[in-house]
Amino acid sequence: MLELNESPREECGVIGIFAPNEDVARMAFFGLYALQHRGQEAAGIAVADGQTLSMYKNVGLVAQVFRPSTLDELKGHYAIGHTRYSTTGSSLIRNAQPFMIETMNGPLALAHNGNLVNSAELRDEMLRQGVGFSSSSDSEVMTMMLARDSGATWEERIKDAMQKWVGAYSLSILTRDCVYAVRDPWGFRPLSVGLLPGGGYAVASETGALRTLGCEAIRDVKPGEIVALSANALTVTQALPPALPAAKCVFEFIYFARPDQTWDGVNVHAVRQRLGEELARESGFGSGKAAEENQSQMRVADVVIPVPDSSTPAAIGFSRVSGVLYNDGFIKNRYVGRTFIEPTDSLRKRGVALKFNVIEENVRGKRVVVIDDSIVRGNTTGPLVKLLKQAGAKEVHMCITCPPIKHPCFMGVDMGKYDDLIAYKRSVTEICRQVGADSLTYLSLAGMMRAVGSDSGYCQACFTGKYPVAVDLMSAKTGFERGAK
Amino acid sequence: MLELNESPREECGVIGIFAPNEDVARMAFFGLYALQHRGQEAAGIAVADGQTLSMYKNVGLVAQVFRPSTLDELKGHYAIGHTRYSTTGSSLIRNAQPFMIETMNGPLALAHNGNLVNSAELRDEMLRQGVGFSSSSDSEVMTMMLARDSGATWEERIKDAMQKWVGAYSLSILTRDCVYAVRDPWGFRPLSVGLLPGGGYAVASETGALRTLGCEAIRDVKPGEIVALSANALTVTQALPPALPAAKCVFEFIYFARPDQTWDGVNVHAVRQRLGEELARESGFGSGKAAEENQSQMRVADVVIPVPDSSTPAAIGFSRVSGVLYNDGFIKNRYVGRTFIEPTDSLRKRGVALKFNVIEENVRGKRVVVIDDSIVRGNTTGPLVKLLKQAGAKEVHMCITCPPIKHPCFMGVDMGKYDDLIAYKRSVTEICRQVGADSLTYLSLAGMMRAVGSDSGYCQACFTGKYPVAVDLMSAKTGFERGAK
Amino acid sequence: MLELNESPREECGVIGIFAPNEDVARMAFFGLYALQHRGQEAAGIAVADGQTLSMYKNVGLVAQVFRPSTLDELKGHYAIGHTRYSTTGSSLIRNAQPFMIETMNGPLALAHNGNLVNSAELRDEMLRQGVGFSSSSDSEVMTMMLARDSGATWEERIKDAMQKWVGAYSLSILTRDCVYAVRDPWGFRPLSVGLLPGGGYAVASETGALRTLGCEAIRDVKPGEIVALSANALTVTQALPPALPAAKCVFEFIYFARPDQTWDGVNVHAVRQRLGEELARESGFGSGKAAEENQSQMRVADVVIPVPDSSTPAAIGFSRVSGVLYNDGFIKNRYVGRTFIEPTDSLRKRGVALKFNVIEENVRGKRVVVIDDSIVRGNTTGPLVKLLKQAGAKEVHMCITCPPIKHPCFMGVDMGKYDDLIAYKRSVTEICRQVGADSLTYLSLAGMMRAVGSDSGYCQACFTGKYPVAVDLMSAKTGFERGAK
Amino acid sequence: MLELNESPREECGVIGIFAPNEDVARMAFFGLYALQHRGQEAAGIAVADGQTLSMYKNVGLVAQVFRPSTLDELKGHYAIGHTRYSTTGSSLIRNAQPFMIETMNGPLALAHNGNLVNSAELRDEMLRQGVGFSSSSDSEVMTMMLARDSGATWEERIKDAMQKWVGAYSLSILTRDCVYAVRDPWGFRPLSVGLLPGGGYAVASETGALRTLGCEAIRDVKPGEIVALSANALTVTQALPPALPAAKCVFEFIYFARPDQTWDGVNVHAVRQRLGEELARESGFGSGKAAEENQSQMRVADVVIPVPDSSTPAAIGFSRVSGVLYNDGFIKNRYVGRTFIEPTDSLRKRGVALKFNVIEENVRGKRVVVIDDSIVRGNTTGPLVKLLKQAGAKEVHMCITCPPIKHPCFMGVDMGKYDDLIAYKRSVTEICRQVGADSLTYLSLAGMMRAVGSDSGYCQACFTGKYPVAVDLMSAKTGFERGAK
Repeated sequence: MLELNESPREECGVIGIFAPNEDVARMAFFGLYALQHRGQEAAGIAVADGQTLSMYKNVGLVAQVFRPSTLDELKGHYAIGHTRYSTTGSSLIRNAQPFMIETMNGPLALAHNGNLVNSAELRDEMLRQGVGFSSSSDSEVMTMMLARDSGATWEERIKDAMQKWVGAYSLSILTRDCVYAVRDPWGFRPLSVGLLPGGGYAVASETGALRTLGCEAIRDVKPGEIVALSANALTVTQALPPALPAAKCVFEFIYFARPDQTWDGVNVHAVRQRLGEELARESGFGSGKAAEENQSQMRVADVVIPVPDSSTPAAIGFSRVSGVLYNDGFIKNRYVGRTFIEPTDSLRKRGVALKFNVIEENVRGKRVVVIDDSIVRGNTTGPLVKLLKQAGAKEVHMCITCPPIKHPCFMGVDMGKYDDLIAYKRSVTEICRQVGADSLTYLSLAGMMRAVGSDSGYCQACFTGKYPVAVDLMSAKTGFERGAK
Repeated sequence: MLELNESPREECGVIGIFAPNEDVARMAFFGLYALQHRGQEAAGIAVADGQTLSMYKNVGLVAQVFRPSTLDELKGHYAIGHTRYSTTGSSLIRNAQPFMIETMNGPLALAHNGNLVNSAELRDEMLRQGVGFSSSSDSEVMTMMLARDSGATWEERIKDAMQKWVGAYSLSILTRDCVYAVRDPWGFRPLSVGLLPGGGYAVASETGALRTLGCEAIRDVKPGEIVALSANALTVTQALPPALPAAKCVFEFIYFARPDQTWDGVNVHAVRQRLGEELARESGFGSGKAAEENQSQMRVADVVIPVPDSSTPAAIGFSRVSGVLYNDGFIKNRYVGRTFIEPTDSLRKRGVALKFNVIEENVRGKRVVVIDDSIVRGNTTGPLVKLLKQAGAKEVHMCITCPPIKHPCFMGVDMGKYDDLIAYKRSVTEICRQVGADSLTYLSLAGMMRAVGSDSGYCQACFTGKYPVAVDLMSAKTGFERGAK
Repeated sequence: MLELNESPREECGVIGIFAPNEDVARMAFFGLYALQHRGQEAAGIAVADGQTLSMYKNVGLVAQVFRPSTLDELKGHYAIGHTRYSTTGSSLIRNAQPFMIETMNGPLALAHNGNLVNSAELRDEMLRQGVGFSSSSDSEVMTMMLARDSGATWEERIKDAMQKWVGAYSLSILTRDCVYAVRDPWGFRPLSVGLLPGGGYAVASETGALRTLGCEAIRDVKPGEIVALSANALTVTQALPPALPAAKCVFEFIYFARPDQTWDGVNVHAVRQRLGEELARESGFGSGKAAEENQSQMRVADVVIPVPDSSTPAAIGFSRVSGVLYNDGFIKNRYVGRTFIEPTDSLRKRGVALKFNVIEENVRGKRVVVIDDSIVRGNTTGPLVKLLKQAGAKEVHMCITCPPIKHPCFMGVDMGKYDDLIAYKRSVTEICRQVGADSLTYLSLAGMMRAVGSDSGYCQACFTGKYPVAVDLMSAKTGFERGAK
Repeated sequence: MLELNESPREECGVIGIFAPNEDVARMAFFGLYALQHRGQEAAGIAVADGQTLSMYKNVGLVAQVFRPSTLDELKGHYAIGHTRYSTTGSSLIRNAQPFMIETMNGPLALAHNGNLVNSAELRDEMLRQGVGFSSSSDSEVMTMMLARDSGATWEERIKDAMQKWVGAYSLSILTRDCVYAVRDPWGFRPLSVGLLPGGGYAVASETGALRTLGCEAIRDVKPGEIVALSANALTVTQALPPALPAAKCVFEFIYFARPDQTWDGVNVHAVRQRLGEELARESGFGSGKAAEENQSQMRVADVVIPVPDSSTPAAIGFSRVSGVLYNDGFIKNRYVGRTFIEPTDSLRKRGVALKFNVIEENVRGKRVVVIDDSIVRGNTTGPLVKLLKQAGAKEVHMCITCPPIKHPCFMGVDMGKYDDLIAYKRSVTEICRQVGADSLTYLSLAGMMRAVGSDSGYCQACFTGKYPVAVDLMSAKTGFERGAK
């Protein structure tokens, strides 16, 4: 598989729908479609008709997994869905979601975005109690805990389990006659709910998916809340007190979320533009004319270009503040996705050039500022710089819309382990030299948080190492692998 | 799907292999290939390399499910495999076997042929204990019981569980470093073990599969035994005392097993030939010449033909004893299998004619005896009789190599419920009239058992209603459906 | 691909249907289904609705190639279909049939069973005239000749082309508003026509397929005839005088045709039984008892077994005449078909044992006569003998229902080239030694023809080398390969 | 299939490679990958090894059509490839390219971008000469003409055929030992050639694909040229004198080409930016501040947004000249491609909203200028305007970077027929009212050509109706359909 992208990998997008008199499976399909950017490796939908649950899931893009005939068999009024980035290999399908089981209280299905940090302990405890697990997923752990809880109602059982779950979980849960939307007290991952125009409700990881479905009156599912979507009404329960401060994943703003996502009233596109504005101020770049006028010590650039697609708003913002002309510099092959064809040796040497082409006319002979959202492993940045130099760029200045990523994520983003991170144990100067840029500027933590519009309530652990919950750091050191998983 | 066959459906074939220095997945593949007649809807193989288990299963014929690349990923020295007849619909894959789980004692996989009669009780008990089930299969119930047993070794845990299991189970079980072959104390379903020529051992539902693998020194796994195949040795444990008498499924001889299967020293092909011989004696048919010579009250026939393929040996035996000329009368479309194409209305009226063509030359103007192995639902027999009459047969006499089937099977054969059985509440005369034959002869119970070579040690419940274990008869009455399944 | 079968490969089965007010594509599907034994590698159906033609073809079994949605798109009143054995590799689909083209006289599709012996010359001539060919198939040559013929009607054009075609061709041809069934003047390959019960007509390579469709009043399309199936009527034209004598492929009786095929009034099953009877007489085998009674020099055997499936009727006939007890000795894995899984080394050594299992009980300690239809390359016979010996057979006597095959077929049967044929340059004694049998008996040419019921009118070239038409023998010598194909 | 895009459809991208000692099929794959935007429905590659040609083609995206095993079978030093937008239905595969045939001069394969306007005449002529066609494609017509030409060499034959071909053709042609790149004398479609870094040459529809392969010294294949890529050298022949003026498709700049394409020294991205600049001047929009300062009659807008992706550079250019703030307003679902799932009724009403989401924060309460590249059928523009209004935009002003499209294309772009075009028989005012915008501005023809940088040498027929070659206008009137196609 051609894997030229070093981007961090989001684990999941979830959706949940209650819609009487609608083809809920088909609605879930289009909802997942709008969440496809959160996971391209597997997709699944489970529906309930008041009595029984049925489900279909498989590996592939949403549009590949579902055929009309597949959806036609999923009849009901309630649906949940899931799209996932997952690891390669033959076990793919075993970790696909939703997870669906029969319990003493009837059938149950669960779709999960996030990652429990105490999953191993919870799993080991249940193993000792004689539970068998058919996957290595923390989401199955959650499902099994719900199955054995002694609470009188599903809401109580969810509440009970939430007491024990530590980490990130935005869930949609399906029972015979209800969809539950659940968000952890830290609020790590987004989850929103809205009214469907034809009656009923929907929840989704991002507001963009809700708008695709035509939802109105959209609001966040708040940290610690259980929202129940059923025939009776939309009921909201504060199951656990919200953590203070909250720990919303700031990286959703930097990279994951689609720009039309609005989270807690904050629009992602706007944040990204402000990230570029802050970066312009901090980096001190300006146009030649501005430099002249200001007689300043300003660093001069001829053009600012984004690494498409996520950095485009930031580059626009950068241009506005700095006065440096905005332009496109890279063309991304829109159709690059999964291919099982390996490049020839000669093509392999060209590396990232298979994914990005340079518009030479826009960079030749110029001092170029490149805006990228983040540097994780660092294996894309070097080739991009080289491409620009080959195309005749006079100078290449990398400007990154977040601080150096020095710590792994334990809450559901696959950034690799410590040794995978280029900024772990390397200075900015060293990284700059390694990628071959003329300069490298990271946005400061303060600048990033100004762009986000708040300096608390966010998890910044990948930058600071200050995790909002206790994590097993050893498990992120290379060479250390957990037992049987 | 074109389903013109009214044959009872066998649930499974299982295989297990320990073979150091061999590609066990590939061996399991060819073993399952030879068990394909026991289940054509799903197949799976799990292997262990001493540390981890890996598995692949999917719906389809063995040859469709496995690709070279699939097998290449299944590395190890131990393997189990399963081929299954299963119900239609989207949940197919969920009931495919083996079942594989992680337990407190390490990974475990199980492949099952048979049916527990107390599965619902065992499942309900575990549900109440908070276990979640991802399928409706009794085999998952068995897997989960093994996961939670407190025994010190796998052998102990299997032994413990066997105490609670009531019904039919021939199992191959895979752990990190052992394959266990287990047979219930009644011995309902076959299971045999043999030495592999290159070292190691194999178990399989039928000896034919073992011979395909080149096995020597083949013997039955006896009722109540656990046979462990591992690096050390082949160890045999009598985990439960064998039931007295045993309750081996007599229908394996009548229909299921491939004719090269030898069970407890009794060869299936030979039994079938003797079934035909007994039937010849009981039915009193003879050739015209014999009738003349004997001046007897013999019923006269010109030709005896089998319904291919399972009735061929019986027809040969019938011919030998009766003197009635043996010949082929039906051609079965060898490639009829699964097709999703529905016949046109005009073709649908032709029914069974899509599956069988008559060799008119062999039946025209003749008094024809037709040998069939059994009549279950009875929807094939009528059309066959009609086909022969249309082809010009003067008389059509149906001779069946077993008694009327009046009771459902609870031990793993899908014969339908009471109301599905044509012989339930109908006399032989009524059935004969319904299928339009000139006469209908069932072999007597005594005749059948003479052919088998023993009059005890066999389950004959589908004929007699005397079940060797307590069963829930209510569940086989139409209109009664068990809860959540 | 596991290829353990050394059987000669038939090239094709064809079908043609005119049925107003019927779903002709679906009828063609079930017709092809009944011709599946004539070709398992590719299938196709073309239909016409009076104006336009549409077609679908692909590699695979008929049931794999067609989905309901595929058939639904093939709307019309006229249909032709084709099922084919074809060579491996990426060019598979290019040689699949029907061939469909647009001509100056409207669209045309053609399905062909047989092989032109002057195809290379015709093709070269057209190439020189500037025609481009998209396949290496002689059937495309035929299609292109029809496209450029100057005749005023399709019937005239077909007639013109028939003047130039030398070799075997049983065709179904589709135009906007007619299906033509065409058979070469030698009558090499079978082709029959019948009335559909609901109105309309059908043609097919074998009568069995016509009976599957419910046809009545079935008769052969005679050598040199064009039969037109259209809205008006069934019209029969003797386009070319029939060759005298005819050259019907005798091997259709020996091996290819399904036993329910009736050709020129001769039933295949009956012929095969008589082949066995002749072989019994010629071989001189008898039962021990007969030998004793007759005090003769009779060769004594304990049992006669067929190599399933095609030799079964012959073995029955052999038994009837010789008095040697008939029984089954081999079990053929019914599901052996195409698998892409290669056996392990240890399994590979077992060879044909993956395909056939011996019923040991039926051969152990016995003098066994084995009836096989033919020996072509000879790579199956040896392993079968060995299997029987390993199972304890005391003696193994191979009896073949035709003479030694010493010459390749140029009329559509892939028997390989001269050097591929075991009987080319080898005596019967040598072959017997090579396959390890205790004796080897071939049926004589005269015996074979007695069984067929006529001593003229048949092509026996593969036995005699006397080809009914001039052939390019050089092309069947190993090492000689024709140019660009 | 969900088809929410009203964009004109490009027919093809072509590629050709000669690369000794390279895996040319794999190189062709990556070249096609970079041309994927020119056709997403089918792809094919043919290779030659000096003796024989082999080919694989199928429906689907390039990455779906080719597997490693498929490419492995395509061995050689020469390759051509094709990616195509094609019509739906079962005949898809028949029109896929390359076309490959055997001719009197050896095998030949051809890949074609463009459309012959005299294809019907040429085809009819050949039909009358007795040629059969297996598709309705003009590209097969071209192939067959090459097959029958009497020229002594392939170059002569191509030259001969070019005399008769009228219309658009950029071709890559493969013979046993050469790849020919051919461009029509009008130069309708682009085609470029470059040196491969490891030796050899490549041609492609766009320079971006050549750069992806690492090509250097890239230049256009000039109108009327044949460029031969072979072992000897790169030879260039001016087969026909170039048309004066040339008739390069201006729409390549407006919409089709990827922004990194450079054609005749003109970069597409730069042209698009200038289109936006010209549009800013012509439309008279400015920022509120500019309006104030200038005291002018300037039309005031708060933000300018592109319809992604092709209009982005124009919107940037518009912003630079007008001073109106540039921002993103729409999010395009990147993964929207082919899905066979139909929306529910309620979703269907939402129409284009399934493909585009609005970033409400960026348009609410604002006067919005929307830049779109073109309006063809007009069924997307209305819904986009409505989406913006629903999101709270105060005013929506559509600005289009080309003049009204009033005439169909006959040179390879599927814009539909006259009645499909919204601007055919409708004034700008009427269109504006129909799409519900507050204003609608089309760029003038002169403005467009200024942006392109030349006022001659381009085909502008879709705007002016002045076709560079004689076309059959009748065939583009609704209700008129050509015969058998």
